[in-house]
Amino acid sequence: MPKTAVLLIDCPDRKGLVAAIANFLVQQYDANILNADQHQDVELGLFFMRIEFATDDTLCDESHFHAAFAPLAERFKMNWRLTFATPPQNVAIFVSHYLHCLADLLHRHQTGELSCNLALIISNHEAARPLADFHKIPFHYLPLTAANKTQVEEQQLALLSANSIDMVVLARYMQVLSAEFVRAYPQRIINVHHSFLPAFTGARPYHAAFARGVKLIGATSHYVTEILDEGPIIEQDVTRVSQNDQLPDLIQKGRDLERLVLSRAVRWHLNYRILSYANKTVIFA
Amino acid sequence: MPKTAVLLIDCPDRKGLVAAIANFLVQQYDANILNADQHQDVELGLFFMRIEFATDDTLCDESHFHAAFAPLAERFKMNWRLTFATPPQNVAIFVSHYLHCLADLLHRHQTGELSCNLALIISNHEAARPLADFHKIPFHYLPLTAANKTQVEEQQLALLSANSIDMVVLARYMQVLSAEFVRAYPQRIINVHHSFLPAFTGARPYHAAFARGVKLIGATSHYVTEILDEGPIIEQDVTRVSQNDQLPDLIQKGRDLERLVLSRAVRWHLNYRILSYANKTVIFA
Amino acid sequence: MPKTAVLLIDCPDRKGLVAAIANFLVQQYDANILNADQHQDVELGLFFMRIEFATDDTLCDESHFHAAFAPLAERFKMNWRLTFATPPQNVAIFVSHYLHCLADLLHRHQTGELSCNLALIISNHEAARPLADFHKIPFHYLPLTAANKTQVEEQQLALLSANSIDMVVLARYMQVLSAEFVRAYPQRIINVHHSFLPAFTGARPYHAAFARGVKLIGATSHYVTEILDEGPIIEQDVTRVSQNDQLPDLIQKGRDLERLVLSRAVRWHLNYRILSYANKTVIFA
Amino acid sequence: MPKTAVLLIDCPDRKGLVAAIANFLVQQYDANILNADQHQDVELGLFFMRIEFATDDTLCDESHFHAAFAPLAERFKMNWRLTFATPPQNVAIFVSHYLHCLADLLHRHQTGELSCNLALIISNHEAARPLADFHKIPFHYLPLTAANKTQVEEQQLALLSANSIDMVVLARYMQVLSAEFVRAYPQRIINVHHSFLPAFTGARPYHAAFARGVKLIGATSHYVTEILDEGPIIEQDVTRVSQNDQLPDLIQKGRDLERLVLSRAVRWHLNYRILSYANKTVIFA
Repeated sequence: MPKTAVLLIDCPDRKGLVAAIANFLVQQYDANILNADQHQDVELGLFFMRIEFATDDTLCDESHFHAAFAPLAERFKMNWRLTFATPPQNVAIFVSHYLHCLADLLHRHQTGELSCNLALIISNHEAARPLADFHKIPFHYLPLTAANKTQVEEQQLALLSANSIDMVVLARYMQVLSAEFVRAYPQRIINVHHSFLPAFTGARPYHAAFARGVKLIGATSHYVTEILDEGPIIEQDVTRVSQNDQLPDLIQKGRDLERLVLSRAVRWHLNYRILSYANKTVIFA
Repeated sequence: MPKTAVLLIDCPDRKGLVAAIANFLVQQYDANILNADQHQDVELGLFFMRIEFATDDTLCDESHFHAAFAPLAERFKMNWRLTFATPPQNVAIFVSHYLHCLADLLHRHQTGELSCNLALIISNHEAARPLADFHKIPFHYLPLTAANKTQVEEQQLALLSANSIDMVVLARYMQVLSAEFVRAYPQRIINVHHSFLPAFTGARPYHAAFARGVKLIGATSHYVTEILDEGPIIEQDVTRVSQNDQLPDLIQKGRDLERLVLSRAVRWHLNYRILSYANKTVIFA
Repeated sequence: MPKTAVLLIDCPDRKGLVAAIANFLVQQYDANILNADQHQDVELGLFFMRIEFATDDTLCDESHFHAAFAPLAERFKMNWRLTFATPPQNVAIFVSHYLHCLADLLHRHQTGELSCNLALIISNHEAARPLADFHKIPFHYLPLTAANKTQVEEQQLALLSANSIDMVVLARYMQVLSAEFVRAYPQRIINVHHSFLPAFTGARPYHAAFARGVKLIGATSHYVTEILDEGPIIEQDVTRVSQNDQLPDLIQKGRDLERLVLSRAVRWHLNYRILSYANKTVIFA
Repeated sequence: MPKTAVLLIDCPDRKGLVAAIANFLVQQYDANILNADQHQDVELGLFFMRIEFATDDTLCDESHFHAAFAPLAERFKMNWRLTFATPPQNVAIFVSHYLHCLADLLHRHQTGELSCNLALIISNHEAARPLADFHKIPFHYLPLTAANKTQVEEQQLALLSANSIDMVVLARYMQVLSAEFVRAYPQRIINVHHSFLPAFTGARPYHAAFARGVKLIGATSHYVTEILDEGPIIEQDVTRVSQNDQLPDLIQKGRDLERLVLSRAVRWHLNYRILSYANKTVIFA
């Protein structure tokens, strides 16, 4: 049975790139290209590529590929990453007391939509424990106060490290992560913000949307960076509201959006379909 | 043939309001209610109503209604407005050099979607003249500079006045109206802004949206108030964009949104379907 | 504390209807109208109304209202129904082996989005039992074969009857109900069909949509009638697909639509927001 | 200044395809790949590719490319087509008495959204003449009866031939083309049908949608084949309707959809972004 892998590349756009990459895969590993997507940013002169390939060549592992691909990567000044389909990524979910995104992710995982190992759930509330237990995911209750935040983050980071966590999902986790925490998982923490960013950043976006009288409300999933609500946007969606929708209706309708944009972002990330640059994302979906 | 009229009311919410209004129309004018919509703002304790009715009573004209309805209006502390279906409203369109919204409004008017008298088009460019001529709408070219702005606005206001204009549509008019101008037509100037407000206020919103890397772009129609881009929102819509969409693609996709949200707003306004309060709108569509 | 109730009316459209109904509620029960919506079908000459009102009048119960309202109802030839907010309706969910709609409804119920008593879950598979147990809803496993269908339906009806079920939700229940069953719960059985009806009726709609190469897939919730997939449509929604979406992707994207359209239909039904006539629905949402 | 061209390919999926094609372009013409998109139909084992490239090689014209590419094309059993950006395609628009799609296409052409030569407009009514004159497009009035249909189609085909027409757009042309006509322009006639196909094929789809009580109405653009409304779907869109929308409202809302789906299809076709197979389309947009 062949191995499958995903190769992600970004580099300055140059003639002959596609041919060079395709030739390498065919000649080196007799690879079968299962999917290939590319994107050019004409203005910035950048090239992005995602190639999913299969190979029967048993030599093809991380270190062999690294050595074999290095000359080409150097010639074209590539940033690149190769990931094999197995083993699946280890994922941690952070949640507070709103459970709709968590429940949704757990159900999708069970259905097979999210191919990953849900390794642990961390919360500053006990509310999610029954759901975690039902799905047999280890649950860690780490209550947070202004006083113990640094200490709790150390505990959280220790748990992530002990579980070899590849990706953190903030499923309506109502705490701001420190810059140190964020730097430990660059482009690997996904948050859902309950507004159509950049409108209504910060706290209580549904209240702000209601006050402004918008006719559509939105939700946004994005990579977390050190600047709150300013990371690269991965996905957004909106739904219509009217005068018949009071604040609780906005919150209810918004929950559906949050579930959709967060779960799509997580799935794309898990399938290596997101490239990020210039505080934007390229989605190969 | 019966007259038809629209009665718009807003007032504090009180018991017996609907019965009192309905009774008045039936008993006073033997009215046939063609459409009735109401809305309650529970938080603010406000009541809004739109009633479209027909009557054969020849007595029913503006002054008679005013006198007859006054006691009831006073008792319930109503703001109200009665408008007969005929004559249609007089409309002026302001436009600069982007003509897509103007062309769209003119075509819709021709098709019968907009029941009004398109009385004149005012522009600071000559670009729209052929289109105005084709549709036989008087066209006024009033070039604008920083130096002559006050003077040109006086000319504009004189034209509006001379044509008994009821409503002004800013169809991508790239000039900011003075506070004096806006105050002359309260809730009667509709603008289209090419972003999903309150995101990307001000100039060059597509550039800003492109720089931020949003996954949906939007457009907003709103009443113009003295504060730029802050008036009551009437309609919004969005469309999906991806990394394949460069700035010119955003602008092109946005044009379709601008046409849609502006034309809906104009039609609703012409049909007296919009009530505005607390810098929001109630749409009875 | 006042009682609240919803009054649903449909009747031939006549002058004075609104005034008569509003007067009755005010004069008879000193009612406070919390919400009122009406709709006229001009072509068929029909009038529809939903009034939600509160009253402190302890006399106001079902039998008193029935007697008091009868003369008015007769005069205007009304079909009408009065329902008090309490007690909540008893709901039964039927499900087979796809659990996404069930999981979604259970989570929404827990969140407070669906105000009802989830009295029982009936399934021809064991798959849903753990979920039912987690949410502490009685679960009944009634396996079905071609041979025992009549007998099983009798057991199902007996369970519904024993639990005073008001409403049945078919949450991807993969069996066709008999005409007798349907007749026992007219306008009280809601199904979700995984296509944009009337396109792709019958079995395997995602396969049919994939084969036809549509660019949007949909889902539809509707009242069940004796003719399969032909009952009054309550809600529909669609999502975009492309050549990148293979059949499993359509099925996955469709699950999100099914959840949305089914849960909206159930919520509207529970809040007495749906009137049905001429095989269509009027939604007062 | 370099020439740009688009190469469209479909063939059985095989190892080494991408490398072979990319190598050919680079080695033969020192081509700069501006855009490349590919798609695999896993089930059918098919491969589709669109490559837009620029070259300074003056040798690169149609006949040279044909000879040079032939061995590769043969080896991989390719269907392929090369088109240079200039000259633009010649387009004919057919229209009857509803002018909204025509007006929209003409405005988009003027704005630069559609890069083509609008060579002529053919109609069985005089209604479109003023619009054609305003845009200075030759207009041909060819009235149609049951008796003269064959003869008129001959006239139409003669006009198309005399103008070297590459593509025909049916912009609400209310006549069914004969099989002979369709066969003369395979995958080169685009129609707009005013429903969400395959729902409501045939005449009066808005009437049918209204009667069925759907909650969304749609429009579809597709290539015309010999079987009415059954050709490969290019684009679809929908909009929400409610009980407040009577038949004229459906027709009005539908006009906006028709404009959008037809203009997108025409633009994609003009930019060689559509590949068609198995009665479906692959859109490289």
